[in-house]
Parts: sequence; structure tokens; C-alpha cells
Amino acid sequence: MSAALPPAPPLRQALEVALYASDLEACAAFYDKVIGLERGPEVPGRHVFFRLGDGMLLLFNPEASARPPGNPALPVPPHGAQGPGHLCFAAERAAIAAWAARLRAAGVEIEAEFDWPNGARSLYIRDPAGNSIEFAEPGLWARDPGG
Amino acid sequence: MSAALPPAPPLRQALEVALYASDLEACAAFYDKVIGLERGPEVPGRHVFFRLGDGMLLLFNPEASARPPGNPALPVPPHGAQGPGHLCFAAERAAIAAWAARLRAAGVEIEAEFDWPNGARSLYIRDPAGNSIEFAEPGLWARDPGG
Repeated sequence: MSAALPPAPPLRQALEVALYASDLEACAAFYDKVIGLERGPEVPGRHVFFRLGDGMLLLFNPEASARPPGNPALPVPPHGAQGPGHLCFAAERAAIAAWAARLRAAGVEIEAEFDWPNGARSLYIRDPAGNSIEFAEPGLWARDPGG
Repeated sequence: MSAALPPAPPLRQALEVALYASDLEACAAFYDKVIGLERGPEVPGRHVFFRLGDGMLLLFNPEASARPPGNPALPVPPHGAQGPGHLCFAAERAAIAAWAARLRAAGVEIEAEFDWPNGARSLYIRDPAGNSIEFAEPGLWARDPGG
């Protein structure tokens, strides 16, 4: 099928990644105060957005984001997932160790921390909504793990 | 509280972004054949991973990824969301127009397409699992929209 389609422009970056939290403000405070991300636009009760490099981490209250859009000029499609999602931040090994120290000092439990078979390290915590948040070395997904 | 914590190493990139699909293979075929992402590692029935720049788009069957890990050496924490999630790919305006042509040719409905107040364009579709997938100009989140 794909051979008959117009070409696919290359996609190289997720501009927005989304997580969901029914207790939006408690979870937003975690990404602000503990994870240290810069807060961006927000609509109280619906979402708080955070800057992540050139893109954004979008934190939504799924009950609110699942409602149909109210502005005909900006017909943003509804969405809203329930249950624990997953996001992984890129962090080098020394930064992962620094994150472990900071997270423990903030009272956040380290759920898992280990090296993958290719040598890359991962550390896992939960955000207040129960999402599985990982910090991993970019080499985890290198095409040549020895490079 | 944050002032008393060890410093937060800067986070600039999502290394992994996750979406969920109970019909894993149908959804994986969409990201492979229509979206044109390169398939990476997979565990049949549990997940299919796709390369996205230096990172990965992780597509999980939430019923499988929610099970506790079985390998004590790799205690990957369980997760698994239900219902429509959201992901936005970065694409310039000309690429968004090319995506619209390709998606329509593939029989994918364009759910919404509009310009934001700062001039950036967004196009929205649904993947086979119902996730809201957006293609948006990076300028949407530029600090200086006029720049």
C-alpha cells in the first residue's frame, strides 16, 4: 500500500508528549518543583504544559481534555487516557545519579534502577498520578551500542 | 522545597514517548506503513517500538505492559493506559500539507486542520487505536512566535 501513497515527509521529533493526571495540580507541582521543568501555558482544571527542550510536555486532566472543543476556530480534538502512562527523559549516567540523589531527597521512591544488556542505565519513578517516569541514557537506543 | 534539594540536571529531550493500542499489530502496521516510521525492537503481543529521531516511539498493548516484569535482572515497572492518548510530531508547513495528501490517499480522515493564533499550523488524525495524533509546526511553541 505504502508504495502507492505520496511520500512520507521525515519525522524526527515529538513536538508534544502527553501525560494524564486526574489530580492535575498535584502532578503539575511535581513536574515544576521536583523535576524542575519550566511551566508554560495552562488552563486551570484542564492542563498545564511544560517546556522540554524545543518541545512540550503536556499534562492533562483526562476528564477535561476528553470533552469536545468549545471554540469553533480551534477545534482541538478531544483525548484523555486513564491509568499509568510512560515517559522517558534522556539523561547521561552522571545526570541519572544526580537525579537519584535529588529524587530521594524529595521523598520520591526509586522503583527500579539497572543497566540494560547494552550497558545503558535506566532509573524509574512514579509521578503523583502513577505514570511510570524513566530517566535513561540516550545510548540505550543507539544503533551501535558500542559506538 | 526545591531550594533544599540537590540540583536538577537539565532535561531537554523525551527519549521515549509511549502510546497504547489493544490491537497492537493493526496499530503498529499504521505507524509502519502509513506514518513510515522505522520498526525497532518488538515483543509480539506486548510492544512494537519505532525509531523517531534519536529516540523511540513505544507502542504498547496496555493489557500486556501492565503485567509485572518477569525478569529479575530487568525489573521494568508496569504501566498501561486505556483510552485515547495524544502525540504531536514536529513538521514544517509544507510537510504538513504533504502529510495531509498522504493521509487522505491512505484513507485516513483529517479530523482537524487549522492555524493557531501565533500562525503555526496543526493537523490532527486518529491512529487505529483512537489516539489523537497531531502534526504541528515547531513554531507553535517558539518563545518568540515572531522570530
